[in-house]
Amino acid sequence: VVNEAAILAARRNQEAIGIKDLEDAIDRIIAGPEKKSQIMSPKEKEITAYHEAGHALVGNVLPDADPVHKISIVARGMMGGYTRFLPSEDRHFWTRSQLDAVLAVNLGGRTAEKLIFGDMSTGSAHDIEQATKVARKMVTEYGMSDKLGPRTFGRKEEMVFLGREISEQRNYGDKVADEIDSEVHAIVEKAQRLADRVLVENRAKLTHIAETLISIETIEGPELQELFVSPVPKKEEIAPAPQAS
Amino acid sequence: VVNEAAILAARRNQEAIGIKDLEDAIDRIIAGPEKKSQIMSPKEKEITAYHEAGHALVGNVLPDADPVHKISIVARGMMGGYTRFLPSEDRHFWTRSQLDAVLAVNLGGRTAEKLIFGDMSTGSAHDIEQATKVARKMVTEYGMSDKLGPRTFGRKEEMVFLGREISEQRNYGDKVADEIDSEVHAIVEKAQRLADRVLVENRAKLTHIAETLISIETIEGPELQELFVSPVPKKEEIAPAPQAS
Amino acid sequence: VVNEAAILAARRNQEAIGIKDLEDAIDRIIAGPEKKSQIMSPKEKEITAYHEAGHALVGNVLPDADPVHKISIVARGMMGGYTRFLPSEDRHFWTRSQLDAVLAVNLGGRTAEKLIFGDMSTGSAHDIEQATKVARKMVTEYGMSDKLGPRTFGRKEEMVFLGREISEQRNYGDKVADEIDSEVHAIVEKAQRLADRVLVENRAKLTHIAETLISIETIEGPELQELFVSPVPKKEEIAPAPQAS
Amino acid sequence: VVNEAAILAARRNQEAIGIKDLEDAIDRIIAGPEKKSQIMSPKEKEITAYHEAGHALVGNVLPDADPVHKISIVARGMMGGYTRFLPSEDRHFWTRSQLDAVLAVNLGGRTAEKLIFGDMSTGSAHDIEQATKVARKMVTEYGMSDKLGPRTFGRKEEMVFLGREISEQRNYGDKVADEIDSEVHAIVEKAQRLADRVLVENRAKLTHIAETLISIETIEGPELQELFVSPVPKKEEIAPAPQAS
Amino acid sequence: VVNEAAILAARRNQEAIGIKDLEDAIDRIIAGPEKKSQIMSPKEKEITAYHEAGHALVGNVLPDADPVHKISIVARGMMGGYTRFLPSEDRHFWTRSQLDAVLAVNLGGRTAEKLIFGDMSTGSAHDIEQATKVARKMVTEYGMSDKLGPRTFGRKEEMVFLGREISEQRNYGDKVADEIDSEVHAIVEKAQRLADRVLVENRAKLTHIAETLISIETIEGPELQELFVSPVPKKEEIAPAPQAS
Amino acid sequence: VVNEAAILAARRNQEAIGIKDLEDAIDRIIAGPEKKSQIMSPKEKEITAYHEAGHALVGNVLPDADPVHKISIVARGMMGGYTRFLPSEDRHFWTRSQLDAVLAVNLGGRTAEKLIFGDMSTGSAHDIEQATKVARKMVTEYGMSDKLGPRTFGRKEEMVFLGREISEQRNYGDKVADEIDSEVHAIVEKAQRLADRVLVENRAKLTHIAETLISIETIEGPELQELFVSPVPKKEEIAPAPQAS
Repeated sequence: VVNEAAILAARRNQEAIGIKDLEDAIDRIIAGPEKKSQIMSPKEKEITAYHEAGHALVGNVLPDADPVHKISIVARGMMGGYTRFLPSEDRHFWTRSQLDAVLAVNLGGRTAEKLIFGDMSTGSAHDIEQATKVARKMVTEYGMSDKLGPRTFGRKEEMVFLGREISEQRNYGDKVADEIDSEVHAIVEKAQRLADRVLVENRAKLTHIAETLISIETIEGPELQELFVSPVPKKEEIAPAPQAS
Repeated sequence: VVNEAAILAARRNQEAIGIKDLEDAIDRIIAGPEKKSQIMSPKEKEITAYHEAGHALVGNVLPDADPVHKISIVARGMMGGYTRFLPSEDRHFWTRSQLDAVLAVNLGGRTAEKLIFGDMSTGSAHDIEQATKVARKMVTEYGMSDKLGPRTFGRKEEMVFLGREISEQRNYGDKVADEIDSEVHAIVEKAQRLADRVLVENRAKLTHIAETLISIETIEGPELQELFVSPVPKKEEIAPAPQAS
Repeated sequence: VVNEAAILAARRNQEAIGIKDLEDAIDRIIAGPEKKSQIMSPKEKEITAYHEAGHALVGNVLPDADPVHKISIVARGMMGGYTRFLPSEDRHFWTRSQLDAVLAVNLGGRTAEKLIFGDMSTGSAHDIEQATKVARKMVTEYGMSDKLGPRTFGRKEEMVFLGREISEQRNYGDKVADEIDSEVHAIVEKAQRLADRVLVENRAKLTHIAETLISIETIEGPELQELFVSPVPKKEEIAPAPQAS
Repeated sequence: VVNEAAILAARRNQEAIGIKDLEDAIDRIIAGPEKKSQIMSPKEKEITAYHEAGHALVGNVLPDADPVHKISIVARGMMGGYTRFLPSEDRHFWTRSQLDAVLAVNLGGRTAEKLIFGDMSTGSAHDIEQATKVARKMVTEYGMSDKLGPRTFGRKEEMVFLGREISEQRNYGDKVADEIDSEVHAIVEKAQRLADRVLVENRAKLTHIAETLISIETIEGPELQELFVSPVPKKEEIAPAPQAS
Repeated sequence: VVNEAAILAARRNQEAIGIKDLEDAIDRIIAGPEKKSQIMSPKEKEITAYHEAGHALVGNVLPDADPVHKISIVARGMMGGYTRFLPSEDRHFWTRSQLDAVLAVNLGGRTAEKLIFGDMSTGSAHDIEQATKVARKMVTEYGMSDKLGPRTFGRKEEMVFLGREISEQRNYGDKVADEIDSEVHAIVEKAQRLADRVLVENRAKLTHIAETLISIETIEGPELQELFVSPVPKKEEIAPAPQAS
Repeated sequence: VVNEAAILAARRNQEAIGIKDLEDAIDRIIAGPEKKSQIMSPKEKEITAYHEAGHALVGNVLPDADPVHKISIVARGMMGGYTRFLPSEDRHFWTRSQLDAVLAVNLGGRTAEKLIFGDMSTGSAHDIEQATKVARKMVTEYGMSDKLGPRTFGRKEEMVFLGREISEQRNYGDKVADEIDSEVHAIVEKAQRLADRVLVENRAKLTHIAETLISIETIEGPELQELFVSPVPKKEEIAPAPQAS
């Protein structure tokens, strides 16, 4: 266990302790490597379980999304959990309908947090970043905004100094810049509303999956499929797994 | 066969699997090298066939476009198919009418997808990028916008550090930037409407060419010309080719 | 004691003495290393004591903030004092409620200065910088602005020349830029109002903690907890510590 | 003869053939080296002849322009033709009237294309680029815009990294940027109208010169002067030269 | 004595002599090293004396400013004179009131020039630069603008190529940029009005100090304090010092 | 004599001859080294004489300008002539009144061209560039705009890569950028009006000086002073000098 308090203490002689340390800690957690032995507090475990259950449930309900393969809240990296999807075919391209589903699944974790706790956490930072990238590409590279039409926006530039880097040069005016923002916003909001609707309509199942995750931590294979299709069981039917991991 | 699922599985220990992997996969497909042995799903094969048939049919109908030479849906690179044109003469320059036709042909693939499936795919990304470049040059380098007149916009800059790169410096104000966007939009939309009209008016022929492509995968030479001029045959007349490739 | 006047004198032959030297001095003080032996003037000691008491008291009153661990006005670095917090758990992520509390604690120092002296000092520069960073991340990375929604704004870029550096590229239009500013402003102002309210409502306790700090310079452990819970004592009960440090 | 079709064929195995190849071809033609042995199609030869005749005739009619020295449609570089002017004196500077004439001569090629064919070609790209540069300098370096007055706009910067490059830094606000665009536009449009008027008023002579060029390909010396001053002859009077070149 | 005319003459063979040389000369004077042996014209000496007297008098009158230590018009560097202040304490930070006084003192030189001569000189360039920096920091780093609140604006970036440099990246929108300008303007104007009021109300003393400076060139210690407190003497009481220096 | 026509001819095999060559030629003339042996055409000689006479006459009439020392139209560099001023004193700084006069003198050349020929030439490019720099510094560095007040605008940055370069970073918003433009414009226009008025009121003397210059090419010393003060003589009184130079 990397003890955050110990790190903070070690810094005592360098500067006043404040938000800076806490902020660095957030960044390290988000970007950090797998931390198998980390113990989550019960509250964090609960939030994580609902977050992953949200991803999985939206993915299961939407027909254009890939099938859900495994859900786990064993801590690794950012969120302390993950949901894995199985691509349904050897895909060469994506349709707009499929990308809309991908976005809704992506925002499902955050949506579950809001629905259950009325709050949201920094744990969705990576989801949000990916959703923004996909929605932006739909508008600026794939011509999927009816308003902006079949054009690309922005010019990629490769800059080869000593390192190597791709920079994006803006090659459009202020009005188009605002329209791109507006179209990206519309796509993300549409996906958010879709995720909202799925989870509100399936709230009992969401709670059931999350509570199962809290108990047994990882669900996959036939058990996972059963969980999606079966009617919501009563709580006492689930045998709690040992917390150690 | 590069199995996408295998790649995804191999990444399991590195990060939570989500949109990021899917997004990378899209990029790899779009920019990737020829993949002869790849098997397309029937659905993707159908979309590809209509996409290529769209390019070819618009090119065949418009008098200012170059003659169509060959159509194929044997998977290579991005789209899993391609249409090749034969330049009609040893050209020193292009007229505005010819470039308008070039743009309509270019958007023909996407237009066919929309017309037949009511959806659009990431497979048109390269077409859209090229259409944007040509339309932009018409406005900013060739003086073909009546509104903006015979001026060039933007200053090319060669930056020779350790690599080599051309950067474009904006040398105009906000109003002109908006006008350039508006003129590029008008040119692309005009080409889109032209492609729409051609395909709507020739929908039966579009379907016939696409279905022929699904059956025999590659069409060229006299058979291609016959397909364009002949009345649309009944489906059963075409002998399906073996799917193996 | 680094005698500022001596430095100013040493510069006599180089340039006219004016604001430049004073300004440099400010910067050196803000960014400078620990200066244990520095003697503060009584006025500065008083301001520092109220500043730290402000941080501590807001942190103690707000339930979502971490527990206060230690307060000191022994001069080190910028402010000549510091307040240390004990993270309540091994945190994997932060909720919006927790970050709101972090911001209010952060602005507590400045708020105390304004409340007591009707003035504010350059000593809060670091607090303000950190508060701005956190509020900005809430809006642009964590999706915590309801108005802007679950999107990220800005593209991080790593530039590897000879050094190493992260640059942030703006990838949004003017309207969104203004909205981000407006949302960051709203979050910071909300935290400011929260800190205001806490300190106005606990002004007697603020004065008591500050005066205790002036007397004994460092408070921690059970004494600190007692100070928070006990009713405000009369001044003469506190035995002043020797000023030497 | 560089066979463009051969190049296109050689690229078959690399990517789907589309607008990209055609676009590259346009660029190569515009920027390419002299191509003496290239054969132009009759249509291109006709367009080129009118383009060069347009330059020459405007130059001959306007008193402030330099005398025309030679006209040729033997293919070299971009346009497949050229018109050469003889500077009338050892010039130290240019007046505004002379620069206005220079611009009209420059746009004479494009204007002839529009007048005769109702279309315009990429062959004028270089003319347009030069006209824009001159008009821009009139406004931003020579103080020749009455509205913007005797000021310069933009700051030249030399950037000496490993290469060497001049960059132009904008040192003015948005309003001035729009005004510069507007003044450059006004100057170019004025020159365009002047070229229009000259060619409309001398259309018969334009046709005569162009047809002579198609026949004998290069005109210079006394024959050229005679062509400008003589009344327009009947077509059959001109002895066609052999097409080989 | 660096004879400016000689430099100008030496340049005769290189370019037409005009404003460029004069402008370079201004820059050299402003940024130049101490020039002890330089002789000022009587007019420049008078302007310099009033400039320094303005700084000193504002500094003496405002209670939040540091005590004035020495005034001199012996030419060194930019202005040909200087005023030195004695920081009243070993300062760890500055309050807003103190910074407001610092700004008024800073603008006192220029204000005296305007009041006495109805003109202003390039000699205040350094004062203005420093005042702008301080006022800007008050708004963007110290949270001292009530309108913009406790936030920082702009992101410092260290760029380590071969040299070393700090760049400031703008991380806010157009509206905030305008508000920052407006707040900086308000702070500077407030200081300007304060300096105006002090000098108008103490005009006789200003003249007395300036005339004393013209006579004896340097004033410090008890004489300086006496000059501030004593009633304004009659001119003939001062014994003029020899002009040589 | 660098024969411009010869250069143009030498380029025949490289590209179509057009505006580009002419434009390069303009640049070379403006920036070029001294060209003593160059012969000017009579028309250019006349324009040059009035240009230099304009500079000199405005400088002579305005009391805040430095005394005129020498006028010559012997070709060197840009304009083929020059006017030299004698700084009246060993100056440490410049007042606003003096800089206003400097600007009017600077624009005197261009103003004379407009007054006499109703046209203007590229020969004033350097004058305009210098006037813009001075006017811009008055606003952005010397605090001489009453509207913008005692602030500096823009941040100088030294960039030390392999070369060395000063870049100016804009640190203000759009409104201020427009106000700076507007104030610079006002200063330049005021100087232009001043030069206009001086030359209109002294038109006979302007003609007399210019005609004397055409005859004897260089005027300095007592003859120059006499020319300024004496009533305008009749033309035949001046003995023409030999044209050879």
